[in-house]
Amino acid sequence: MKIAIDAMGGDNAPREIVLGAKRAVDEFNDVEIILFGDEEKIKAEIGSHERIEIVHTTEMILGTDEPVRAVRRKKTASMVLMAQSVADGKADACISAGNTGALMTAGLFIVGRIKGIERPALAPTLPTLDGKGFLMLDLGANADAKPEHLTQYAIMGSIYAEKVRGIANPRVGLLNIGTEEKKGNELTRSAFSLLKDSGVNFIGNVESRDLLEGAADVVVTDGFTGNMVLKTIEGTALSIFSMLKTTLTSSFKNKVAAGLVKNDLKDLKNMLDYTEYGGAGLFGLNAPVIKAHGSSNSNALFNAVRQARQMVGHSVSETIRAAVMEEKN
Amino acid sequence: MKIAIDAMGGDNAPREIVLGAKRAVDEFNDVEIILFGDEEKIKAEIGSHERIEIVHTTEMILGTDEPVRAVRRKKTASMVLMAQSVADGKADACISAGNTGALMTAGLFIVGRIKGIERPALAPTLPTLDGKGFLMLDLGANADAKPEHLTQYAIMGSIYAEKVRGIANPRVGLLNIGTEEKKGNELTRSAFSLLKDSGVNFIGNVESRDLLEGAADVVVTDGFTGNMVLKTIEGTALSIFSMLKTTLTSSFKNKVAAGLVKNDLKDLKNMLDYTEYGGAGLFGLNAPVIKAHGSSNSNALFNAVRQARQMVGHSVSETIRAAVMEEKN
Repeated sequence: MKIAIDAMGGDNAPREIVLGAKRAVDEFNDVEIILFGDEEKIKAEIGSHERIEIVHTTEMILGTDEPVRAVRRKKTASMVLMAQSVADGKADACISAGNTGALMTAGLFIVGRIKGIERPALAPTLPTLDGKGFLMLDLGANADAKPEHLTQYAIMGSIYAEKVRGIANPRVGLLNIGTEEKKGNELTRSAFSLLKDSGVNFIGNVESRDLLEGAADVVVTDGFTGNMVLKTIEGTALSIFSMLKTTLTSSFKNKVAAGLVKNDLKDLKNMLDYTEYGGAGLFGLNAPVIKAHGSSNSNALFNAVRQARQMVGHSVSETIRAAVMEEKN
Repeated sequence: MKIAIDAMGGDNAPREIVLGAKRAVDEFNDVEIILFGDEEKIKAEIGSHERIEIVHTTEMILGTDEPVRAVRRKKTASMVLMAQSVADGKADACISAGNTGALMTAGLFIVGRIKGIERPALAPTLPTLDGKGFLMLDLGANADAKPEHLTQYAIMGSIYAEKVRGIANPRVGLLNIGTEEKKGNELTRSAFSLLKDSGVNFIGNVESRDLLEGAADVVVTDGFTGNMVLKTIEGTALSIFSMLKTTLTSSFKNKVAAGLVKNDLKDLKNMLDYTEYGGAGLFGLNAPVIKAHGSSNSNALFNAVRQARQMVGHSVSETIRAAVMEEKN
């Protein structure tokens, strides 16, 4: 299979991106990679490889670019060419660590939506304390959602959890502000009824405070709420670790203690690092499109390739297409 | 002034509730308290006090009761009698640590809404790393909100921040998933335009990950999102502290370290304890109604009395009434 990668997207591009790609072809014999970006810079990092093709371009979409305009105007940007290669059937999946909005736009308008899917969804795997992680969607592809969209998220998430993450009969929860059926706002109350009849293994409402404890395998929510909750988890964790650091350096006694537990605390922080779980899939498109974290290092990029490889290998997009056709009939 | 207190609400009632009330009358010469609950049990804890009146009742609203039904049927419940005393003009404000939904119902139907306020809002003061805290509303009085409701929350929150918390020209932020004006869902985009013209000191969108850093003095949001974010902060903090505890007891070396930093870590945890900032005000009612945390100890209850005393002393309800009349004209 062929995987297209935007070599110029992300904080550590192109170096970490192409190192990750190199590691992926070394590890997976069935993977060929097409890198889109500055050929000279890419070759300076990884030289040549028989299963890595380089498509040279110097145009880039920046993190500060307005997504829709950038995708429309920068026709030879590495990200745009990458998406185009999937649309043209030259690659089976694509990965970028660049501008999230632009990647969603390129996914929607270039790779294209699966017929019947009304809204694609951004779906990262988030950490749990037991290390298993859970899939949450939508994390911000669409701020506003209707109840029917949440049902489609549930179907897409279940397929991914089963095929790629190997979870039999994945538990689907609806993110809500209480566990009782009548809790929540108009959206969640309507979605609750629809999810009961949707054919997924719906376990009811789950609360945000139970997410890290592994309350469900797939958690569905509208993009506004999902994005809000993700940023709240990140912000709270960062604030606490920063307070912890202040505390652990505030006195000689504490510095001694800090020295003793330093490595274990680092492990703890890494447990919450969701880049370990690969990138966020953009579900509902004609082929797998993966958003790697902006700060991706080569390891995160490698994990994203592994994820794309599994999505292609297990025909996730095709299975979603078939499930949606069945839902509509 | 007279403050009515539900002596039977909360996990530690009546003991901690009435001990907190006792401490308040000892400290504040201008406060008289009416306690609603089991006279015998109350007297066993605090005896008699010339500025504490006890209204005896044994009926209670439980945490598991369905709010609207409980308030309607349990006509002599301590919480209901408490709210009635405010409606009858016998008390100037009221406090309960009991069933939140029931207190909101009693506030709305017994104490009554200020004319012109479409939706009351639940407004706790939440912690920031610098210890100053910020007011956030609505945290769940109404799951669904319209843009105009968010404007009223901003006006009520500003009045409270200025009068009770002593913040001149308080900065009002709109909770959103990005800082740019066009970010968010339909609700936040419409609310942004309204807030710009509302007369409050609107500083634009604030993101949830910046809340603990003190991004604004007053943060407005719909009740669904507010409740979700509050529970996410709580859940994330609890999970991290529980992971931290596991780490710090996982080896002899770590236990030694834990012994050295134990007290400082406790201080750190307390910094995030929002019961220190008093209870959550239910804004938009004819008189101050305060929801103390369900797990309130005597200190939390004492802080809630101080808060009610300031709200009455600074005529917060009357100022909100005047501001809303002005807004409508």
